[in-house]
Amino acid sequence: MTQLDFWYDFASPYAYMAAMRIEKLAAEAGGAGVTVRWRPFIIGPLFKEFGHDLSPVFDNQVKWRYLLADVPRQAAYYGVPMSAARLEGPVPSMLGARVALLLASEEDNLCPAFTRALYQASFAEGRNIAEPEVVAAVLEGMGADARAVIARALTPENKQALKDQVAAAMAAGLFGIPSFTIAAKDNELFWGNDRLEQAIAAASAASIAL
Amino acid sequence: MTQLDFWYDFASPYAYMAAMRIEKLAAEAGGAGVTVRWRPFIIGPLFKEFGHDLSPVFDNQVKWRYLLADVPRQAAYYGVPMSAARLEGPVPSMLGARVALLLASEEDNLCPAFTRALYQASFAEGRNIAEPEVVAAVLEGMGADARAVIARALTPENKQALKDQVAAAMAAGLFGIPSFTIAAKDNELFWGNDRLEQAIAAASAASIAL
Repeated sequence: MTQLDFWYDFASPYAYMAAMRIEKLAAEAGGAGVTVRWRPFIIGPLFKEFGHDLSPVFDNQVKWRYLLADVPRQAAYYGVPMSAARLEGPVPSMLGARVALLLASEEDNLCPAFTRALYQASFAEGRNIAEPEVVAAVLEGMGADARAVIARALTPENKQALKDQVAAAMAAGLFGIPSFTIAAKDNELFWGNDRLEQAIAAASAASIAL
Repeated sequence: MTQLDFWYDFASPYAYMAAMRIEKLAAEAGGAGVTVRWRPFIIGPLFKEFGHDLSPVFDNQVKWRYLLADVPRQAAYYGVPMSAARLEGPVPSMLGARVALLLASEEDNLCPAFTRALYQASFAEGRNIAEPEVVAAVLEGMGADARAVIARALTPENKQALKDQVAAAMAAGLFGIPSFTIAAKDNELFWGNDRLEQAIAAASAASIAL
């Protein structure tokens, strides 16, 4: 089994599409198989490092207009529900990232299920995932103890863990999301939901070669 | 038949990949069929308009490093030859654009064949297509009267035609290359070689609906 690292931020509609597709594609991969390591983080600090106030998509209104058309079109193409209301501006994604990262560190790893559910709350249902009640409702929907999970997500240790994850993303050469890296192939990097199939194939090929 | 407009600049390796693929994909399209209108232009003036000195890819060294890895990987994926030497910096593409645009306006329309051949000279063979001798050699390889074609490409009328093409690209909402637009669908825009299949499918579907 070769590990494919999946880097995402809850603000990104393209990362949402990748999150809804990646496990099925990994399960269908040939070779010795591909496992997915879910790596939530926040990309804002990277964008700042590269000189952008928010996302670079907001720097060019012409490109931004295109993305407003492309996102629902891509969602339809992949069969992923998309609420028009959600695309009006940046999505504050810090709390979601802290909770997802905490869950990824715990033994029963609820991170993938939580990630999909929180993405759906945001992009399919148009809910504001910056609100703790929305995050709590998603956790409760999964049968988790929402209050306890959020408390653990807000400890100094977990806040530091998110900072470390951001530093790891920077060290991996990331500049956008979603991104995929293959540790077994010298951290080969793929950027974008439309590279997901190629990333899976490359990981699968690596699993044969090793 | 629905027309798909294919917008490209000889500087772009991703547009090169699209140029080598588009006619086959259009020929295989279902519905009432898709015809390709080849629309060479230069994207530099658009990048300037959006505040970049050259291409936005040079604004972020981390992203640029990624593209240096992604371009040969994508070329291999699509089975298109790619010379490593060609990827070191911007490609002056004005002369190629003027010649291609001239050819597209003439009755025997040598534009598609010239475009593919000039892209190959640049990206497959690593030749400097800013040199008139290189452009002339490509034209001669096609059996054209190179000296006469280049002279017609450099008339004030043809220079103005390229300016008009740039203005049309701007009016169409372009911001990157390759791009594809469907006039019959209110100029629906697709950006990137990795959207080419979807653009063909959308044009093909439009040809049924009309």
